[in-house]
This record gives sequence, C-alpha cells and structure tokens, in this order.
Amino acid sequence: MLFFTQCFGAVLDLIHLRFQHYKAKRVFSAAGQLVCVVNPTHSLKYAPTRCAAAAQESTEQGVLPPCHHHEAVHDPQLVPCTCPLFSCPWEGHLEVVVSHLRQTHRINILQGAEIVFLATDMHLPAPTDWIIMHSCLGHQFLLVLRKQEKHEGHPQFFATMMLIGTPSQANNFTYRLELNRNQRRLKWEATPRSVLERVDSVISDGDCLVLNTSLAQLFSDNGSLAIGIAITTSKVHSSEAEM
Amino acid sequence: MLFFTQCFGAVLDLIHLRFQHYKAKRVFSAAGQLVCVVNPTHSLKYAPTRCAAAAQESTEQGVLPPCHHHEAVHDPQLVPCTCPLFSCPWEGHLEVVVSHLRQTHRINILQGAEIVFLATDMHLPAPTDWIIMHSCLGHQFLLVLRKQEKHEGHPQFFATMMLIGTPSQANNFTYRLELNRNQRRLKWEATPRSVLERVDSVISDGDCLVLNTSLAQLFSDNGSLAIGIAITTSKVHSSEAEM
Repeated sequence: MLFFTQCFGAVLDLIHLRFQHYKAKRVFSAAGQLVCVVNPTHSLKYAPTRCAAAAQESTEQGVLPPCHHHEAVHDPQLVPCTCPLFSCPWEGHLEVVVSHLRQTHRINILQGAEIVFLATDMHLPAPTDWIIMHSCLGHQFLLVLRKQEKHEGHPQFFATMMLIGTPSQANNFTYRLELNRNQRRLKWEATPRSVLERVDSVISDGDCLVLNTSLAQLFSDNGSLAIGIAITTSKVHSSEAEM
Repeated sequence: MLFFTQCFGAVLDLIHLRFQHYKAKRVFSAAGQLVCVVNPTHSLKYAPTRCAAAAQESTEQGVLPPCHHHEAVHDPQLVPCTCPLFSCPWEGHLEVVVSHLRQTHRINILQGAEIVFLATDMHLPAPTDWIIMHSCLGHQFLLVLRKQEKHEGHPQFFATMMLIGTPSQANNFTYRLELNRNQRRLKWEATPRSVLERVDSVISDGDCLVLNTSLAQLFSDNGSLAIGIAITTSKVHSSEAEM
C-alpha cells in the first residue's frame, strides 16, 4: 500500500513537473496564473447560408432581417445568440445567455481576475474564432479572438472582450489584453462593450486589439498565441494624467 | 516703465495660459511632459524615380541595387542617409548621422526621458511621414511615424523608434510608445532597432506599432495623434514573469 501511495505520488509529481514544463514552454510568463488552452473553431459565420449573411443581404434590399427583427421591436433586453461561431436562431434574456453559450455551444467558462488565454493553431486559415467565457468580479465576459480577412489575402487577428450585460454595466469595467514575447510587449486596455452591441460590429469598427500576421507570428510560440487577460472595476482612465 | 513691465508680464501670462490651454486641449495627459508638435511631410520615398524603388526593382531583377551597394562592401559602419523622407545620396559614419539629419533634413531633436510626440494632420493621404530625433540617456533616437498603404485603399500607421547607433548598443534599451484616449490605451514596448537596419525594413516586416485608420481615429483629437514616448536602459523583458 505504501509502495502504491509512493508510486502515485511520484506520478503526480511527474504530471506536475510536466505541466510546469508545458506552462513554462508555452506560456513563459504565466507564473501563478491560470492558463487556458483554447482550440480554434472554423467560423461558419461568413458562409452564404448564414443567418447574419441573409440578414445583411435583406437589409441591403430594404427588407427587415429575418433573424433579428424581433429584438428592436419587442424587448431591447432580448439578446440574439451572442456566440459568433454558429448560425443560431436562439434569443433570450441576458440572464440566460451564459447557460445557453455553455450548454448549446460548449463554450468554456473560467474563473479568476487574471488568466492566460492560449490560442492554438494560429496558422489555420481565416475565418477562425477562439472563444471563451471569463467569470470575474461577479460578472461574465466573453473573450473572442478572430482571424479574418478584411482585405483579401491578408488575414488579421482581432481580439476583444465583451460583458454579458448591459452597456451601462460594461462602463464600470476595464479589460486589458497583453502580449509579451521576443522582447516585445503589446497592451490594449479599454472598456468592454456589451454583448448587446454585437461582436461583429466591434470587429468591423476595428475598436479592439488588432494584429497583422507578422506581429501575430512575433508573439506566437510554436503556433500558439498567449494573451494575458485582466479585468478591473476601477475607472483607470480617469487618471489619464499619469500617461 | 512700470506700466510697460506690467503689460509685458500680462502678455506673458496670457501666452502661458494659452499654451497651457493648447497643451490641455491637444495633449490631455501631458502633465509635466515635453510636448513636441510634429508636422507631416509628404514622403517622396515611393515615387518611381526614387533610389529605393529603383533598388527594389533591380533586386527583383537580380541586379545589385545602384544606391546602397557600397555600404556592405566597404564599411559596415558607413550609414546611407537614414532619413526616410528624401532621396539622399549621403553616406557617413554613425557619429555624424545626427548632424546630417539636423542640418540637411531639418529634423528637430528633443531632450528628455519622456516626451509627447504630437503628430498633426493625420488625415493627409499616404505616403506621409512624421519624424523627430530624441536625445536621451546619452544617445540619439529617431522616431518615425509613417502613413502607408500596404493594401491599396487601406492606409495604416506604423510607428517605430530606432537608435542612431549599432545593433549591439540598441540592445541595451527599451522604448515605449503609448496612445491614451477615449477610454482606450495601447502600449507598444520593444528593443529599438539600429538605424543600420533601415526604417523601411522594420516597417515592411511589421515589427512596430501598427494602427489601422479606425484605431488612429479613436486615438486622435482634432486630427492630431499624441504618442507618449519613454526610453529606459533596463532590460525590462528579463522580468517577463510579471506579465
């Protein structure tokens, strides 16, 4: 029995060491932070059969979009599915968005004020999304990293964090995304947008962290990109004088 | 005489107030920092008659570039003119680059560890450059902000800082560029490159702060972009564990 316990302990130690090595190798600066490996999903968003595409087409033709025309008319708190990955006809109140994203779309949720988001397989062709939820300070946030070609043949990476809550709730927070590798550091700090303003709008406005392919490569390690994430409640930007 | 002195004092006060107002209005976070207004220069770099264009064409055809083939053959310390604005046939040793840039190209030089670079008229069409020299920690640095269209119809802004010195000297420094406005903050930290590696290469590699037009607009105030600049000697990146 003692032998078994010792063996088990040694195996645990080995697993621990290996995990440490893995962390040290893939996320060099993740000391004491939760590292979350996020696998990509090829985005179906831009396929011509998509609801969003159909909505856009019909709007261009002056017809009301078939999927989202309820939201403005009936209840501004009724959210169409915020998951940017799939054509999803679901609509619901903000309070049940998180459980919908977890259950229907299997998006993971992580706890903690500071986490490391490790996006794998950055080389995959656009459009591709990396998505996770982040539970922190009593609220849930949605982190989206998207690889998209705004200009044909030139994919870019867009990263943003959105509050699963109202715009006025979102104004109480600041989020920070940080890349740190190869003697370079890039930090983006902003007030999160609400999921009521859709991910697509934020990315098409370019109001997020934007990386071209060469910068993404400089910050990547072995095809994976580690993004340090921190959320605070304080109004950091009122102290802009300390720039 | 007393009346004259008082009048003069009042005028000085007014000028001072106006300058304070100007600073407060245009560079909100410049408390105690030196603000330098940098006017744009339409870049002639990309005109078809330019040496660089000719060099690129001839390189593509497998011919040695006509302008820079001396530098590698004769003396690696001999620097072709580092000013990215003009077709300049000048070549010289690193020690006299600063005086050449000041005297021939009228590029200003500023003192101080932290300065604010205020680039005006950001709306001007690409290609446009904003350039200044920065004297700090016993060395001179060249700050270049360039508006350029890598993809036709989609101008981007590229900002980098280079040491007027050798690559091994450059390795002792870290520079930081910071944008801060509209509840958004973007920071880029890196080791400066040496002017011996040319500005064009750094920008075409994308190894610098890159802004698309929408981000540049978010950070601009009334057509001007304020970039906070700081240079340190410490090897900040050895402490990457604190990310």
